[in-house]
Amino acid sequence: MTKLWGGRFGESINEDLHHFNASLPFDRRLWRHDIRGSIAHATMLGATGILDTEAAAKIIAGLKDVEKALESDPTPLAGDYEDIHSCVESLLRDLIGADAGRLHTARSRNDQVATDLRLWLRDEVDGVRGDVRQLQGTIVALARLHVDTILPGTTHLQHAQPVRLAHHLLTYFWMLDRDADRLQGLRKRVNLLPLGAGALAGTPYPIDRKMVALSLGFDGVIPNSMDAVSDRDFAVETVADIALMMVHLSRLCEELILWSTPEYGYIELSDRVTTGSSIMPQKKNPDIAELIRGKTGRVTGDLMSLLMVIKSLPLAYNKDMQEDKEPLFDAVDTGRQCLHSLNLMLQNVKVNGDKLAHSLTGDFSTATDLADYLAMHGLPFREAHEVVGKIVRHCIERNIGLEQLADTDLRGFSPLFAGAPTNLTSPLASANARESTGGTGRKAVLAQFELAEAILRDASVGDA
Amino acid sequence: MTKLWGGRFGESINEDLHHFNASLPFDRRLWRHDIRGSIAHATMLGATGILDTEAAAKIIAGLKDVEKALESDPTPLAGDYEDIHSCVESLLRDLIGADAGRLHTARSRNDQVATDLRLWLRDEVDGVRGDVRQLQGTIVALARLHVDTILPGTTHLQHAQPVRLAHHLLTYFWMLDRDADRLQGLRKRVNLLPLGAGALAGTPYPIDRKMVALSLGFDGVIPNSMDAVSDRDFAVETVADIALMMVHLSRLCEELILWSTPEYGYIELSDRVTTGSSIMPQKKNPDIAELIRGKTGRVTGDLMSLLMVIKSLPLAYNKDMQEDKEPLFDAVDTGRQCLHSLNLMLQNVKVNGDKLAHSLTGDFSTATDLADYLAMHGLPFREAHEVVGKIVRHCIERNIGLEQLADTDLRGFSPLFAGAPTNLTSPLASANARESTGGTGRKAVLAQFELAEAILRDASVGDA
Amino acid sequence: MTKLWGGRFGESINEDLHHFNASLPFDRRLWRHDIRGSIAHATMLGATGILDTEAAAKIIAGLKDVEKALESDPTPLAGDYEDIHSCVESLLRDLIGADAGRLHTARSRNDQVATDLRLWLRDEVDGVRGDVRQLQGTIVALARLHVDTILPGTTHLQHAQPVRLAHHLLTYFWMLDRDADRLQGLRKRVNLLPLGAGALAGTPYPIDRKMVALSLGFDGVIPNSMDAVSDRDFAVETVADIALMMVHLSRLCEELILWSTPEYGYIELSDRVTTGSSIMPQKKNPDIAELIRGKTGRVTGDLMSLLMVIKSLPLAYNKDMQEDKEPLFDAVDTGRQCLHSLNLMLQNVKVNGDKLAHSLTGDFSTATDLADYLAMHGLPFREAHEVVGKIVRHCIERNIGLEQLADTDLRGFSPLFAGAPTNLTSPLASANARESTGGTGRKAVLAQFELAEAILRDASVGDA
Amino acid sequence: MTKLWGGRFGESINEDLHHFNASLPFDRRLWRHDIRGSIAHATMLGATGILDTEAAAKIIAGLKDVEKALESDPTPLAGDYEDIHSCVESLLRDLIGADAGRLHTARSRNDQVATDLRLWLRDEVDGVRGDVRQLQGTIVALARLHVDTILPGTTHLQHAQPVRLAHHLLTYFWMLDRDADRLQGLRKRVNLLPLGAGALAGTPYPIDRKMVALSLGFDGVIPNSMDAVSDRDFAVETVADIALMMVHLSRLCEELILWSTPEYGYIELSDRVTTGSSIMPQKKNPDIAELIRGKTGRVTGDLMSLLMVIKSLPLAYNKDMQEDKEPLFDAVDTGRQCLHSLNLMLQNVKVNGDKLAHSLTGDFSTATDLADYLAMHGLPFREAHEVVGKIVRHCIERNIGLEQLADTDLRGFSPLFAGAPTNLTSPLASANARESTGGTGRKAVLAQFELAEAILRDASVGDA
Repeated sequence: MTKLWGGRFGESINEDLHHFNASLPFDRRLWRHDIRGSIAHATMLGATGILDTEAAAKIIAGLKDVEKALESDPTPLAGDYEDIHSCVESLLRDLIGADAGRLHTARSRNDQVATDLRLWLRDEVDGVRGDVRQLQGTIVALARLHVDTILPGTTHLQHAQPVRLAHHLLTYFWMLDRDADRLQGLRKRVNLLPLGAGALAGTPYPIDRKMVALSLGFDGVIPNSMDAVSDRDFAVETVADIALMMVHLSRLCEELILWSTPEYGYIELSDRVTTGSSIMPQKKNPDIAELIRGKTGRVTGDLMSLLMVIKSLPLAYNKDMQEDKEPLFDAVDTGRQCLHSLNLMLQNVKVNGDKLAHSLTGDFSTATDLADYLAMHGLPFREAHEVVGKIVRHCIERNIGLEQLADTDLRGFSPLFAGAPTNLTSPLASANARESTGGTGRKAVLAQFELAEAILRDASVGDA
Repeated sequence: MTKLWGGRFGESINEDLHHFNASLPFDRRLWRHDIRGSIAHATMLGATGILDTEAAAKIIAGLKDVEKALESDPTPLAGDYEDIHSCVESLLRDLIGADAGRLHTARSRNDQVATDLRLWLRDEVDGVRGDVRQLQGTIVALARLHVDTILPGTTHLQHAQPVRLAHHLLTYFWMLDRDADRLQGLRKRVNLLPLGAGALAGTPYPIDRKMVALSLGFDGVIPNSMDAVSDRDFAVETVADIALMMVHLSRLCEELILWSTPEYGYIELSDRVTTGSSIMPQKKNPDIAELIRGKTGRVTGDLMSLLMVIKSLPLAYNKDMQEDKEPLFDAVDTGRQCLHSLNLMLQNVKVNGDKLAHSLTGDFSTATDLADYLAMHGLPFREAHEVVGKIVRHCIERNIGLEQLADTDLRGFSPLFAGAPTNLTSPLASANARESTGGTGRKAVLAQFELAEAILRDASVGDA
Repeated sequence: MTKLWGGRFGESINEDLHHFNASLPFDRRLWRHDIRGSIAHATMLGATGILDTEAAAKIIAGLKDVEKALESDPTPLAGDYEDIHSCVESLLRDLIGADAGRLHTARSRNDQVATDLRLWLRDEVDGVRGDVRQLQGTIVALARLHVDTILPGTTHLQHAQPVRLAHHLLTYFWMLDRDADRLQGLRKRVNLLPLGAGALAGTPYPIDRKMVALSLGFDGVIPNSMDAVSDRDFAVETVADIALMMVHLSRLCEELILWSTPEYGYIELSDRVTTGSSIMPQKKNPDIAELIRGKTGRVTGDLMSLLMVIKSLPLAYNKDMQEDKEPLFDAVDTGRQCLHSLNLMLQNVKVNGDKLAHSLTGDFSTATDLADYLAMHGLPFREAHEVVGKIVRHCIERNIGLEQLADTDLRGFSPLFAGAPTNLTSPLASANARESTGGTGRKAVLAQFELAEAILRDASVGDA
Repeated sequence: MTKLWGGRFGESINEDLHHFNASLPFDRRLWRHDIRGSIAHATMLGATGILDTEAAAKIIAGLKDVEKALESDPTPLAGDYEDIHSCVESLLRDLIGADAGRLHTARSRNDQVATDLRLWLRDEVDGVRGDVRQLQGTIVALARLHVDTILPGTTHLQHAQPVRLAHHLLTYFWMLDRDADRLQGLRKRVNLLPLGAGALAGTPYPIDRKMVALSLGFDGVIPNSMDAVSDRDFAVETVADIALMMVHLSRLCEELILWSTPEYGYIELSDRVTTGSSIMPQKKNPDIAELIRGKTGRVTGDLMSLLMVIKSLPLAYNKDMQEDKEPLFDAVDTGRQCLHSLNLMLQNVKVNGDKLAHSLTGDFSTATDLADYLAMHGLPFREAHEVVGKIVRHCIERNIGLEQLADTDLRGFSPLFAGAPTNLTSPLASANARESTGGTGRKAVLAQFELAEAILRDASVGDA
C-alpha cells in the first residue's frame, strides 16, 4: 500500500484496518473526475507561478498519460491504495518521478474529494433530470392515446368518479415535473468549487480559485473553506430528491401491478417486460414494477444513512464522511435504472378497454352527479348527498346499478329529478361534465396536455 | 358525533373506530385556515352564480361569526367531530341552518384539507425562513466579536490548523444560508391552490379557481385535479429541508457541548441558558444544546414516516394520507423551537480566550506551515510533508512543541529552513497567512463578512 | 416553576428555554409509576436505617396522599414543573414540608426516570402481547369458518395456486406469533431495576437494591450503575418489535383494502367499520385499514428517531435521552390502537364466496398441477413446466381456461396425459392435493389449527 | 441467459430489464448454501421415492461436482443467469443432462431462496455473536488493568462524579451482553426450514420436510407454507439487532475520539490503529473509530430499507422481497467488520494517567459527596444540595476547587461539616465510597467482574 502520509508514524497501520479504512473499492468510479480536477489545479499552479511552468506542464502531461493508461487498462484501480487520490498520485509518480509530489501543493484530500464528488454529481443530476424528462414524454405519449378512455377514478381504492385515463396518467407527469424542478434547484447548490479550501483553513499560496472554477465549469467558489470541506448537504439533498421521486414511481408501479391482476385486468404488460415462474407455468409477473416499488425502500434507507452519519459531526472534515459516497452512488444509480426501466414498461402496456367498461358498470361512480344535479336544482348539497346515499342503499339492496333505475324510481327519492337528462348516470357524461380547470372534462384535459407539452418543449431546449 | 356522510349506511361506525379515525385532535390547529378557505370558496360560489348572492352572503357572514366565536371560546375544537371540516360546517349549521349545507357545493374534503394545509404551511415556511435569518444574524454578530480570536481548527477532532473563531462560526452561516435557499424553492411548490379539484375529478360547476387562488394569495392553481388531492410532496419536502437544517444545528450544538466541557473550556454558557442536577450540586449542563441535538433524530423520524406512508399509494386520496399532518406539524414546530432556542444560547456564550491560547500551545497545528515553507522553497510538497512528519516525531519524543525548536534544530532536518522567519510556528501568523479566497486570513474573513451581511440585508428586504 | 436545583446558579433560566426543556407535558403519564417507585425507595430507606422510621413513614403516607389527590384532581400534572419528578416532590413538600427533601436521598433523577419508564413499559409490553394474542384468536376463529373456502393464492399478485382461505389467514397468525415471541424476550430485558444507580456512580448509602426490585416486581437489578442510567436499549427494542408488528398488520390491511374493491369483491366490510365521503354518496371506505397501513410509517419513524438520538452519545446520561419518551409512547399507543382496531375489523368481515369462485375460473391457477402430473409420470419437472407453459399459451390465444380443455387437447401436448383424472384442473382438487406439512391440503390445515390453538391455550395460561 | 421459465412467453424479456431483474450479482454469495440445500432436497426426493434412487444419486453426485468446480473456478458465478438457483441448475444440467430438470420437483425458487438465506444467516448470527463475545473479552481484559484508575464520570459531558475506568468500560460489556442475548433469541426464529412450501401452497408430492430439516441442521419446519415463502422477519430482526449493536459501538467510538483529542488526552491510540493526513504532517487521526461511528448510520439505513420494502406487501412472495438481501448482507458484513476493528483498537489503547488526574483537579466532581455528608448528618438532601450549590458558587467566584477549601470554610456554610473527614473531596475516596450494588466502589466493581467473567465462561462453553 502506498500512502500520502507516514513521516510521523513509527509503525504501519494494521493490515485489516488498512482495508477497513480504504475507500478505493467505491471511490474509484471518480477516477476521471480526480484527474480532471488535478489538471485544472496544476494548470492554475502554473499560471499563478506557484509551480514553475515546466513542472506544471510535466504534471499535466503526466496526468493525461495516466488517464490514457487507465482507459486502456483499469487494473490499477483495483490496487492496494488508500483511495482514488493516492492511486492517481502514485501512478503519476511512476510516470514522472518526484515532481508528482508537487501536485499536492496548496491542496488537501479534503478539498480534493469534495471537488471530485461535485464534478461527478453535477453530471449525474443532469442525467437524472434528463431521464425524468424522458419518462414524462412517454407518459404524455401514452396519455394521448387515451383521451377518451374512461376508467373508475378511485379514492380509498373504492370507485369514486369516472375519469379519463389520460387525466389519470398525467397526474404522474406533474409529480415528475416537481421532481425535475427540485433537481434544478439542487444543481445550483452542487455546482460550486470547494478546491482551494485546503485541509480546512485555506492556503498561504496565491492560488486563483476562480480560474479553477471556470475551467471545471463550476458556477462559483464556496466562500468559506471550512464549509467547503465539511459540507455534504448536496449529497443529502440529492438523495432526498431521488427518494421522493422513487415514492412517485412506486405509486405508478403499484397501479401497474394492481391493473395487471386478473381481477382488475385493466392492462396487460407485454412479454418483453415481464417474467415467469420456476414452478408455475402460467405465471407472467410484473417483476419490474415490483422491483422499482421495492427499491423505493432502498433509496429512503440511503437517505436515512446520510442524515444519521452527518448528525452531530464537529467541524471540519471527519472520517465518518467517507460514508457519504456509497449511499449517494446507490441512490443515483438506482434512481436512473428505475426511471429507465419504468420507461420501458410504459412503452409495453396494452390497455384493456372491455375490462374498464365492465368495471364502470353498476359501480355507483356517478352518484355524485346525481347529488350535483339536485344541488344545481336548489337542494343544499348536504341534503342532496343524503338523498343520493339512500338511492345507493336502495340499489344495493336490490343488487342493481344506478343506471338501471327508472326515472320514476329517481323521482320517488326527490321530485327534483323530474326532467333530468337521461345520461345522468353515464360514466362518459360524468367525466365530460367536469370541465373545471384541471378537471377530467375533455377540454380541460386537452388544455392540460398543452401545459405539459410546453414544459417538455422548454426542457428539451433549456436542459440542453 | 356529526358526520358529513351517512345516507347509504345502515349502521353507525363503532365508537372506538370513530375515535381512531378522527383527525380533529390534531387538525384543529387548521381552523382559521379552514374558515378562510371556506370564505374564499363561498365568495367565488356567489360571484359565479353557483350560489345565489343571498345564500353566499349568509354563509360568509356565518363563517365570520364562527371564527369570532372560536376566537373567544375554542371549546368546540375539542368536540366529537370527525375532523376540522365537519366541525366548522357543523358550527355554521348551528348558526345559519340548512343553508350551511350549500357551502360544500363543488368541493370535497379532499381538496379542502389540501387547501387548509397549504395555507398553513406557506406561512410557516416563511416563519422558518425568518427564524433562520435571525439565527444567521446572531452568528454574524458573534463572529464579528472574534475576528482575531484564534482557535485550533480540527479535522477528525484532532488539531489541524489554527483558524479564526469568526471563520469557524461563519461556516454555520453558510449552512443556514443553503437551508434558507431550499425553503425559498419549496415555497413556490407549496403556494398553489388545490381547491376546485373536488374529490379527485374536478367539478361540473362553473367554478373560478383563479379567483379563489388570488383571494387566498396563492401563486396559481394546480393543473391536475387528481394530483391536487393526492400530492403530499410539499409536506415531504418541507420535512426533508427541516431535517437537514436540524443536522446543521446538531453540529453546532455538538461543538457548544464539547467546548463547554472542563477539558475544552473554550466557552461558558450563562446561567440563563443552562440547567442543574437534582443530585449533583455543582452541575451546570448544556441541556438546551443536547435537546436540539436529540431533536434532530425526531425530525428525521418524521421524514421517514412520511416517505413510508406515501410509498405505493394508488391514486387519488387514501386515508393513509391523514398521517401526513402530525409529522409535518411536529417537524415545523420542532424546527422553529430549536432555531429560537439556539439563537438564545448563542446570545449567552462567553468565549474563554485563555483556554484557546493554551490549547494552541505545543499542539503542532502549524506543522503544515513548515511543510508549505519547504515547498515554497523548492522541495516537492510530498517530500516536505515527510520531512515535517519527522520533525513532529522528534518533538513528541522530546515532549516539546514546534515553537520550542531552535533554528538549528530545524536546519538539521532541512537546510532550506535557513533564513526562515521566526514566527513560522505562530498560530496567528499561520492563520494570517491563509488569505486565499474563503480562507481564514484576516482580509479573506473580512471579505466573507461582506458577502454574509449583504445576504442578510437582501433577505430583510426580499423576505419581507 | 419549582426546580430541584439552583444553589450554584446566579440567574434563572430563560422562560422560553424552561418550557423547551420541560418534559412534564409528556412524562406526566408516568405519575403513578413515579409515586410507586418513590414509595418503594422510601420504604427501603426506612428499612435500611438510611432514614429514620418516622421520616420514612411520613414520606410514604404523603406519597399516598399525593396519589389520591391526583386521582381526584389531575390539574397539577399540567403545572409549571420541569418534569414529573419535580412535580411529585413538590406536591409532597406541600403536604409534609421539608422532610419531602429527604426522599431524594441516595437517588438521582437519572435512575428515577429509568425506573419509572421500565415500570410503565413492563405493563405495556404485557398489554401489547395480550392484544396480539386476542387478534390471533380472532384470526383463528375467522379461519375456522373458511376451512373449505378456496381463493386464488397469489405471488406477485398474480394467481399462483388455489389455497384455502383458512390457510391464507393463518399466515397472519404465525407472523403475530413471532411478534409475541419477540415481546417475551424483550420483557426480560425490560424488567430490571435501575434505581440505586444514583446519578451514574452508585451511592455511598447502604441501600438495598434487591429489596426495591422485589417490591416493584422486577426480576433483578442492573449490574452496572452507568449502564443503568444510560441504557435505552429497552425503548429501541420495543419500538423495533412494534414496527415489525405494524409491518405485519399493514400486509393484512393491504389485502383487506384490495379484497374490498369492486374488482376483487372477495369481502365486504360492515357499516360498523367503514366510513363515507363528504361528496360522493355511494362511498364506503376501508379507512381503518388504510389508517393502520399508514401508521406503519409512523412507528418506523419512531424507531429511526430513537436510533438516531442515541447514536454517539457519550456516557452516561445526556439530555438527548429525554427524546426517548415520545417515540416510545407513540409506538406503544399506536401499536395497541391498531391491534384493537384491526381486531374489530376482522370481526366485521363478510366473505363473498361467489366472487372467489368466479376469480378461480379460467385463471390458470392449476397449471402447476398439470406440470406435477407430468413429472409424477416420468417427465423431468423442468420439461413438464415447458409443456404446460405451451398449453397455457394455447389457451390464452383461444381465450379459454385450462378447465375448458378436452382430454384430447391435453394429450396433444403430451401423451402422458392419457388417463389423467378429470379433476386435474379443479381448484378444490388442487388445494386438497397439497397435503405436505404446512401445505394447504385439508388435513394439513387442520393440523395447523391444532398447533395454533395449542399456542393460544398455552398463552392464556402462561401470559396470565 | 438461461431461465427456469419461458414456455408461455412469446418474446424474451428486454435485455436491460433482464439485468435490472437479475439477482446473481449479489445472491451468488449463497452458492454453497444453494448446493447444500439442493443436496438435502434431492436426498429426500430419493428416500421418499419421489425420484428413483438412481436419478437422485446422479443429481447429488452432480451437485457435488458443481461445488468442486466452483471451488476451483468461480467464473460461472459472474455469468448471465437470473439468479444463483438458475446458475446452479444450469451448471448441473451441463454435467448430467436432462435429469437435472428433476431436481426442481416439489420445490419452487420461493422456498429455495428462503432456505438458502436462512442457512447462510444462521451461521452468520453465530459469527456475529462470537465476535461480540470476543469484544466483551477484550473490554474485560482492558478494564482489569484499570480497576484503580479514576476518571471524571460525566453526565451531559460535564464532570459528575469520579468513577473507576474499569467501571466505565464495563458499561460497554453490558450493552454488548444484551446484543448477544438478542442474537440468541433471533437464532431460534432464523433456524427453521421453509423448504417444502413450494411456490406458496405446499406440494402434492409425499415429501418429508423433517428429514430435510434434520439434515440441514434446522430446529424445525415452518408450519405454514405461505408464511414460509413470504416471511422476512428474520432479516428485519437481524438488521434491527445489528443496528442497535452499532449504536453501542458508536458510543464507545465517540468516547475514544473525544479522549484522543489534545484537550482530553485521556488516551493515546497507537500508530497501528490510526492514520495520517495528506497535507498536515502532524496529524494522527482516529479514523477507525470515526468510520465505525459513521457506519452506524449505514446499518440503520439498511433497517429503514427493509421495513419499507416489506410494508403493505400482499401474500405471498413478491419481487420486492429480492431487495431483502443487499441490506441484510451489508448489515451483517458491516457489523462484523466493525466488531473486529474495534477489538483491534481497544488492544492498542494507552491510558494517560496524568491527564486523568489533572482532569479531576478542581472539577467539583465530589460536590455530591459533600451533600451526601450533610444528608447523612441530618439535613434533608434537598437542603444539603442547596448548601453545596452555594459552596460551589463560592469556589467558582474565587477560582478554586473544593479541595482547596479549608475546614473552616466548609463550616461557614454548615456547622454539620465540623469533624468531617479530610478526604471528603478526594476523587478516589468518592469512588471508593460508592459500594452499592452496581456502584463504582472497589468491591462492587470486583463483584461486577465476577458476573461478567462468568458470562464469558458460559458463552465459551454454550456458544461452542
